[in-house]
Amino acid sequence: MSNNITKEQLFLESANSLDGINSIYDFDVWFENYYKSHKYSVELIPLNKLNGWDVDPASGNIKHSTGKFYSIEGLEVKTSFGETNHWEQPIINQPEIGILGFLTKTFNGLLHFLVQAKMEPGNVNSLQISPTVQATKSNYTQVHGGLKTRYLEYFLDNHNNNIFLDQLQSEQGSRFYMKRNRNMIINVKESEDIELHESFFWLTLGQILEIVKRDNIINMDSRTVLSGVQYVNIENINNEQFIQKEASTFNEDLYISSSTFGFGATHNFEKIMSWITNLKTEIETEIRKIPLNQLTAWSNNGNVISNENKTFFSIIGVSVSAGDREVTKWDQPLLNSLDGGVHCFFVSKISGILHFLVQAKSEPGNLDLIELAPTIQCSIANYSSHIKYPHYVELLDEIPKENIHFDTMQSEEGGRFYHDQNRYVIAEVDSATVREIKPNYKWMTLGQIKELIRFNNYFNIEARGLLSCLKVTKPL
Amino acid sequence: MSNNITKEQLFLESANSLDGINSIYDFDVWFENYYKSHKYSVELIPLNKLNGWDVDPASGNIKHSTGKFYSIEGLEVKTSFGETNHWEQPIINQPEIGILGFLTKTFNGLLHFLVQAKMEPGNVNSLQISPTVQATKSNYTQVHGGLKTRYLEYFLDNHNNNIFLDQLQSEQGSRFYMKRNRNMIINVKESEDIELHESFFWLTLGQILEIVKRDNIINMDSRTVLSGVQYVNIENINNEQFIQKEASTFNEDLYISSSTFGFGATHNFEKIMSWITNLKTEIETEIRKIPLNQLTAWSNNGNVISNENKTFFSIIGVSVSAGDREVTKWDQPLLNSLDGGVHCFFVSKISGILHFLVQAKSEPGNLDLIELAPTIQCSIANYSSHIKYPHYVELLDEIPKENIHFDTMQSEEGGRFYHDQNRYVIAEVDSATVREIKPNYKWMTLGQIKELIRFNNYFNIEARGLLSCLKVTKPL
Repeated sequence: MSNNITKEQLFLESANSLDGINSIYDFDVWFENYYKSHKYSVELIPLNKLNGWDVDPASGNIKHSTGKFYSIEGLEVKTSFGETNHWEQPIINQPEIGILGFLTKTFNGLLHFLVQAKMEPGNVNSLQISPTVQATKSNYTQVHGGLKTRYLEYFLDNHNNNIFLDQLQSEQGSRFYMKRNRNMIINVKESEDIELHESFFWLTLGQILEIVKRDNIINMDSRTVLSGVQYVNIENINNEQFIQKEASTFNEDLYISSSTFGFGATHNFEKIMSWITNLKTEIETEIRKIPLNQLTAWSNNGNVISNENKTFFSIIGVSVSAGDREVTKWDQPLLNSLDGGVHCFFVSKISGILHFLVQAKSEPGNLDLIELAPTIQCSIANYSSHIKYPHYVELLDEIPKENIHFDTMQSEEGGRFYHDQNRYVIAEVDSATVREIKPNYKWMTLGQIKELIRFNNYFNIEARGLLSCLKVTKPL
Repeated sequence: MSNNITKEQLFLESANSLDGINSIYDFDVWFENYYKSHKYSVELIPLNKLNGWDVDPASGNIKHSTGKFYSIEGLEVKTSFGETNHWEQPIINQPEIGILGFLTKTFNGLLHFLVQAKMEPGNVNSLQISPTVQATKSNYTQVHGGLKTRYLEYFLDNHNNNIFLDQLQSEQGSRFYMKRNRNMIINVKESEDIELHESFFWLTLGQILEIVKRDNIINMDSRTVLSGVQYVNIENINNEQFIQKEASTFNEDLYISSSTFGFGATHNFEKIMSWITNLKTEIETEIRKIPLNQLTAWSNNGNVISNENKTFFSIIGVSVSAGDREVTKWDQPLLNSLDGGVHCFFVSKISGILHFLVQAKSEPGNLDLIELAPTIQCSIANYSSHIKYPHYVELLDEIPKENIHFDTMQSEEGGRFYHDQNRYVIAEVDSATVREIKPNYKWMTLGQIKELIRFNNYFNIEARGLLSCLKVTKPL
């Protein structure tokens, strides 16, 4: 990296280029060939028959025989937040912190990301694109007795390389108990030779942002890391010139440069912080792990764990074989959600600057009471006549097609979730349409959002996964 | 507030003025008179005889009879961090979030802070200066059946006023279980008439920073709020001109303008974040509340709770009367620490920019594994031949007197701690003196520190309480 070019400039340049050392056509050929030349099988098997996993006779909790990886436990939730104030549910407990990391390197003056074709048992399509390293601590310390994680050394010992990102970020607070992973981008020197294994491929950020417009290719772990990409050097803002484009040029590329820094924001930083602080102060919660076999309304029939209404999700077992993984055969439990989830940000030009309608949401697995979520984050199927739809859901169907700027299916983590895909939407609304802003919603610019993503546990993974799909074009 | 003046400019102007609507002499007269005209008594009484508090027969935990305020419970700590990896201790559990808030208002163009003369039972000198509002939720919701907290309405309903600060911040992680309070500064309009009660007084920030040079006057809760004062508008940095002064002008006022923004910092933001992330990833802890009567090495003799070596602290009972409090008579338990605590930052000019040697410290009550602490934070008396002194303690005595830029006794919270005062020191060192920087220490500029204090749970209260004593003089 030249001393004169900041990492923000490198990111912006890369996000705006479809011409890297490989073309998207090259990527398609490589990905297709890779898929064809590897065999995967995922078979549903009874939960109580998983090899290497034990059902604790006293608690009914499901644990790996090493005590590592993750466990399925029970949670009792009492909360003053939201419509439902007391429930019990299974939860995934994975106290260790894994690594989700991209290696980047400059080729021909252009930053490239080293992506991986990775099979996960829960993926609808077996193979998706993951970061260079996607590994739990149990994985990368080889608790499973399998092969070494490739390129791991760059992330564990990065003293000679540039750290572009290294922050803990949360995962699904409705499914995981305080889970976090280390989101990393490590930039190696141009002079450093990186050996390319067959399951790895170099792409520009612009190419990744083009591929994410397709359903279920760029996996959740890639998207969370990419949400940490900063296009503005907050410590050197006077060097940046972001010019607001006319509303008429607002197209599917979602011109958001004008929104990337907080100038012209409806609420200033202190107001946003005060809003979060106030909500955290008001919430009263009591969250307590309880034995899985004592959950009201949930039971394990030996085959699956489900609740009596067959809503929310179930826990199932799978037996997996994958020749290209560190271990080629294993069993594991997976969480199987109801279909029909929607993650949607409403966006609107307010005083000429694009704003996002951000939701403060309290989920039982949150480390710190609240995280910020998309405008809509729910599974429609969980609502019926006696449970009200979450706010703004009913508005979504009324938005004209031309105001839907992003609308694809994206997958959640296939290592823990079974065929879990959600509709990811960016929908432009007239801010007057959203007449009544509920107390746990606030309009924020992308610059404000990105500033908070620099720190841990502000934006949840659903929001981050959606924000990572946005392309920031270069200022004029 | 004029639209052209930012809150940062107001703070900076106020921090540099000793001439407010009152003089420091006026303050001294008011404070002395107030002290003389009020009677306080604090009597040590047996812990098991506290009126309104119950010792739970099963657990030995000490709770208020309403179930509110706070309780004394037991904690078992297992941690891979530091020299001692397994211990048990009593801990104060106060799950509710209180308010520590200053009202500010501009008089004659100069920002003033409304301070309060407040008696706390644990204060060495009964009366200290607190923020305008210093109240637990149990207090301000009048669980005690006493009087209403004065000026509370400005903090609960601040829609008409400017929010200058509203952030959750942690308190002592070695003594409290995940305790946090809401640190607030609310600026009222110049046109708003604020009725002045006899225990309240207007001071400029400069006057407060002058008074903090005396021992035990500006209380802990004032200091934590003041640590949130920002002198630089991070979103508008190009308007600020910070000029680096020569090292020779570095005097007792601690000229730190050159350090207030991150330019010229030894480590960039990503490096600092990565350091924290890495430490959080490496630490393995298991922290578990256990019944107080099951703590190894600690016992309650009916009078006090102490450990068998009489080290660290004990829990004692006091009976209090104070005519000027919302409730005029009450009993409560207090934590009584060993004397001789030191909170010290080493500072050093590195490439002409002042840096602070920041310690990453894991304490059992931390919400998120680690918080950032002063270079030295310990009670010397707890160390003996078989427990090594913490790093850098031995260097402190060797620093020439002229390089000690701040050295006073400051009190910890008199509402929970009994006569707990610590030596607060800012000591300038040659960075070459601190040859070997241990992995959990990093040099940071004040600008970097202040940036992290904008967010919750980065800097601990010992660090914040010390940083708030620093005066930032105006750039030339």
